[in-house]
Formats: sequence, C-alpha cells, structure tokens
Amino acid sequence: MDPSEFTARRNRLHEVMSEGKLDGFLVTALVNVRYLSGFTGSNGVLLLGGREPLLFTDPRYEIQSARQTNCRVRIVRGPLVRAVGASLRRRRWKRIGFENGRIGLEVYRGLERTLAPGAALVEADDAIERLRMIKSAAEIALIRTSVAACSKAYASALRRLKPGLREQDLAARLEFEMRRLGAEKPAFETIVAAGERAALPHAEPSARSIGSNELLLIDMGAQLQGYASDMTRMAHLGAPARKTRQLYDAVLEAQLAAIEKVRPGITTDAVDGEARRVLGHYGLGERFTHSTGHGLGLEIHEAPRIGHGDRTRLAAGMVITVEPGVYMEGFGGIRIEDTVLVTSSGHEVLTPTPK
Amino acid sequence: MDPSEFTARRNRLHEVMSEGKLDGFLVTALVNVRYLSGFTGSNGVLLLGGREPLLFTDPRYEIQSARQTNCRVRIVRGPLVRAVGASLRRRRWKRIGFENGRIGLEVYRGLERTLAPGAALVEADDAIERLRMIKSAAEIALIRTSVAACSKAYASALRRLKPGLREQDLAARLEFEMRRLGAEKPAFETIVAAGERAALPHAEPSARSIGSNELLLIDMGAQLQGYASDMTRMAHLGAPARKTRQLYDAVLEAQLAAIEKVRPGITTDAVDGEARRVLGHYGLGERFTHSTGHGLGLEIHEAPRIGHGDRTRLAAGMVITVEPGVYMEGFGGIRIEDTVLVTSSGHEVLTPTPK
Repeated sequence: MDPSEFTARRNRLHEVMSEGKLDGFLVTALVNVRYLSGFTGSNGVLLLGGREPLLFTDPRYEIQSARQTNCRVRIVRGPLVRAVGASLRRRRWKRIGFENGRIGLEVYRGLERTLAPGAALVEADDAIERLRMIKSAAEIALIRTSVAACSKAYASALRRLKPGLREQDLAARLEFEMRRLGAEKPAFETIVAAGERAALPHAEPSARSIGSNELLLIDMGAQLQGYASDMTRMAHLGAPARKTRQLYDAVLEAQLAAIEKVRPGITTDAVDGEARRVLGHYGLGERFTHSTGHGLGLEIHEAPRIGHGDRTRLAAGMVITVEPGVYMEGFGGIRIEDTVLVTSSGHEVLTPTPK
Repeated sequence: MDPSEFTARRNRLHEVMSEGKLDGFLVTALVNVRYLSGFTGSNGVLLLGGREPLLFTDPRYEIQSARQTNCRVRIVRGPLVRAVGASLRRRRWKRIGFENGRIGLEVYRGLERTLAPGAALVEADDAIERLRMIKSAAEIALIRTSVAACSKAYASALRRLKPGLREQDLAARLEFEMRRLGAEKPAFETIVAAGERAALPHAEPSARSIGSNELLLIDMGAQLQGYASDMTRMAHLGAPARKTRQLYDAVLEAQLAAIEKVRPGITTDAVDGEARRVLGHYGLGERFTHSTGHGLGLEIHEAPRIGHGDRTRLAAGMVITVEPGVYMEGFGGIRIEDTVLVTSSGHEVLTPTPK
C-alpha cells in the first residue's frame, strides 16, 4: 500500500483528536497500529501527536519496521510500555487519547503510573474502529482481491469433492488454494461441516467423512495483504431432500431480502430485521441464533455489527457480510453468506460464487 | 481429552485458590478457559469456586459447549460480563481471583462496578500459566503428535522444493500437509524466507522465488488438537558458500550446547547463556537478537521464557523450544530450532527432523 495512504489515515485521526482536544493518541491494538502505520509485526505501540508519529517495537522487527512504515521507529528491548511511558513523560501533553476498549489492564496501569502530573489518559473508545468502517479505494481493491481468491479457491477445491473425503481434507484443500492465490492465511478457521455437524455454527473440520447424501456447510475466507473476505455456501452431494430444499430456499430468500435493503442511510438493525422477518414468516425465527452480519476489513469481524438493536447507519465504502442461517440439532444447519460493499447508490455483492 | 483431565486441572487451581484464600476465580483468557474446561469457542468466561464450575458463552456455542465440557454452561445473549457480574453479586464471595495480566480494561471495569459491597477482585497474576508449564502425560502425547505432523509435513513438502518455487507456494504446501495430518491450522504464520529475506526473524512468505544457490529458512509448527509444535530448519539448494557453512556450524554448536544444558533445576537464564556463550565465542553475540526459546503447549509462546535474566527453573514435564539464530541484513539469517521435553533425568529432543 502506498505510504500516503497511512499518512491520510493518520490525518483523519488527527481531526478526531482535534475535536476531542487530544494532544496525543496512543494506539495499542496491533490491528490499529497496522492501519495507521503499515507495520505488521506482533509487538508494537504507535504514538501519534506532535511532529511525527513514533512506532515502538522490539529488535526482532528492526529491519521489517523500517521497510513497512513511514513513521519514526524506536527499537526497545524489554516491555514497550516502559519506553512509551518515558516518552510520554518527556512531552508536555495534557490529554492523551487511548484505546480503552482494546488495552490490557496491566498495560493501562503501567501507563497511568508513568504519567507526568497534570497529564491524563482520555478514553477514545472506538475512534479508530469508526474510521476503519469506511474503506478507501485502495482497501476496497484489496478486499476485492481477497474475495476473488476465496471464491476461486472454493471452485478449485469443490471440483475434488467426492463422497468419503474427510472434512479436514477439504478444509486443507480450500486453504491451500487460497494460499496459492496469494492469501497469507485463512481469515478465520475454515468451517467444513457435513450432515448434522452443520448445526454447529462454528464447527471445526473433523476426520468425519462427507457422505453422499447430506448437507455440507462451508464457511471460508482469505486474509490477503491483511484484508479479509468471508463467504458461506451450502453444497450437497446427490439430490437434497424436500425439507433441506425448503429450508435452503427460506434462508436464501432471507439473505436476498436483507441484501436488497443494503444502502447508505439505513440502520444495520433494519437489514437484520429484514432477514429475521423472512425467516419468521417460515416459522424459523427461533432457529436464527446469531446476527445477520458484520463489517470486515483488516479484521474478519469489525464494525458495524449487522444485528438487532444496532443503530449504526450504513454509508458508502462500508464492507459487510450478510449471512442469515438456521440450525437444528440432529438435522444440521443452513447458512448463506456474501461479502457486500455499500455503494453511493445502494450495494454491490462482491462475492461472485453462485448460490 | 478425557473429561477427568479438566477436573484434575481445576483441582490443581483450587489448591492455588486455597493458598491465596480465594473464594472464587474468574478465568477470562480464552486459552485458559479451554485449559480448564475443554471449551474451544471464541467467546467464554469460566467461573470457578463453589459447588460446580460455570461456563458462560453465547447461543452460537450452545450445542458445542454441551459436548466439550463437563462444566455447567450458561448461555448468555449480549455481553458475558453483565451475566458474570450478576452471578458474582448473588454469591457471598469476598475474594475473587482474576487474570489481571490477561483481562481487558473495560471487562475489568465492568466487573468491578457489579461487585457486591465487601467483595474484591484479587490479582492472580499468571497462576494458570504457571500450572500450564508442567504438561500432563496426555498433553505430552498431544505435543508429540503435533511435532510428528510438523516434521512429516516438512519432509513431504521439501521433496517438492526446486529452484523457482515461490516462498508462498512452499508455505502453502507445508500448511496443507500439516492439515492433512490432522492439524487444525499452523501454530503461527509459517515462515519461508529465502536469501537475504532470512535476515528478517519473522518474515512473511512472499511471491519471491527461491533461488538455486541461497539460504532458505523455514520456521513452522502445527496446532493439533490445540497443541503446538515449533521447528526451524535451514535448507539450501546447491552447495552453500563457506561463510554460510561456518555460520550454520556456529549456530548448530550453540543450539546443541544449549540443549545439553536442559534438565530439571537449571534456570532458563543458564540455558540461554550457554547459546549466547557459544555464539559470542564466534563473535556473533550481537547478531543473536532474540531469546533462546520459549515454552509451548496450548499457545505457541507460553511460560517459561528461555531468555537472559529469567530465573525460572526447568522442571520435568515442561516443553520448550531451543532456537538460537544470527541475522545479518543483506546476507540473511540462520536459525535452528527444536521442541524439547524436560524429563526427570534431563531432556528429550522431540523433533525428529535431521539438522
């Protein structure tokens, strides 16, 4: 990603800091460090405010951090919090924003202890997560690439599907194909759940063989250059039973109806409500045990939540999933999920895989 | 894993609770929830103390939690912390241990607000991590299986290594083979770093082709039934240059010398010091920029740290890595790593892959 992208993101955060009269901002969630600096290491704190952004990390990342970020880097041996604290004490900042929702208790206490008299840590809540909801053109391009890799991997792997294949072998193949198409890793643990195991919304692939006449639920996503995709499809070897077909049709109707609602200005609650309305019509409301979807980007689950009672309004540039599902212990489950971009005129379903 | 294993672990924690005069213990780190209950979901809090252990999770995990754990389960809609707080208020406990090192600030604040008058949250630090350092026979068996899958996958994938293969394709193949051998996923992001990229201790596999006459560093591990393995090997297509060979020999000498020190009673600092002594002898002390190793189990990095200044004494049943390395920007890096079990009489190198 072009370094100017990170500068632009920091500039947007600086506007938020001005509104909140913050002198500095301490970024401790690694994913937000990445969002604002480009650094992808597993240990880092970013301090914003003042003349230039300052990234703290450890010697393992000395070379990598210099390559990845246009921020100044300070290499620290030992706990970063001590070095960050010392840096904060030297500055004359009064109000330092911090990620209260994404900071460990001990890190917080360590920082609080080192503050100069008169300085305060100010709760910034989800300020960065709110910025991240609206994707830039560069981010949307990466999500498109991630979605394409996910769908291509699905198509390649499904060509090898035959009765007797184990769930875990199909999962291995799906992930292998995503990897070859440029993904760093799966965006989450791939779900391959056959038969009654599809009733577990988060089933781990097992050594169970996929039978020739049963439900098969596949929920997969790639993480590619940091960006997630997310898709669920139902497959079936042989002709599905009438009950299966009816359930599938109901879930598909709910999914399409919810997608139809996606446009700037609508609340996520209304999108969720639409899926719930359709499934309720078929007497399946009780079987739909989770939210309709979630934002995705650098994380597989990020704001906004597409769920009951959530008042966030969709806006152009958001990328979300729409994934209603119904689950019945002993029978199985059916879920259908696409990755959807909110556009200025409505929406675009990014996932190309047929349903 | 047999349910009695989880009961035995909770009994050991109850002894720690008695010593600390704790009436209850609140487990918030998911990996520790898994360790003590068997539950593998992504949302859960475990409350110990009183008649029976109580697991809080959400409706997505209703079926799964009932299958995985012998604890009582409470299914909660919305944030778990509210339900946990209500449960704590109903009890007459005075002192409730909590994982101060592994709890988010907001979860902590939420709990503190709901406590009954006279009740207190008591810092338990790394009480559970200390229990986890010593592996049971069942855990060691799982780590052996994980190590075997890792080494077999390495052997299978390396048979396909030829000049021109991209780093990311080799990583994909290594992970595919681990998956087929029963791993849920890689224990961490597989490192495949060719040539000068091997100088990055945590290099992400790239689209760079592996050349016919250069260093190749592979650091990989499986997560299998929850348990990690960890191995680093150097490969080389063609005959290595004299400098490469000398560096390799120095790192290998350091690694073997450090392994030789591994036995019950020795401090981890002394094991680390031995690797550092050997590399220092070759003038490479400055190039060895990280610790000598770490414990592993349900996490890829867990206690103890095998590093400078760490006074933990090794004990039978610990499983650690020994992985000295040297890194030079522009040239590359060399690291050699095995998974090692501390036995009553000394140690056993679990990793079977030749060096």
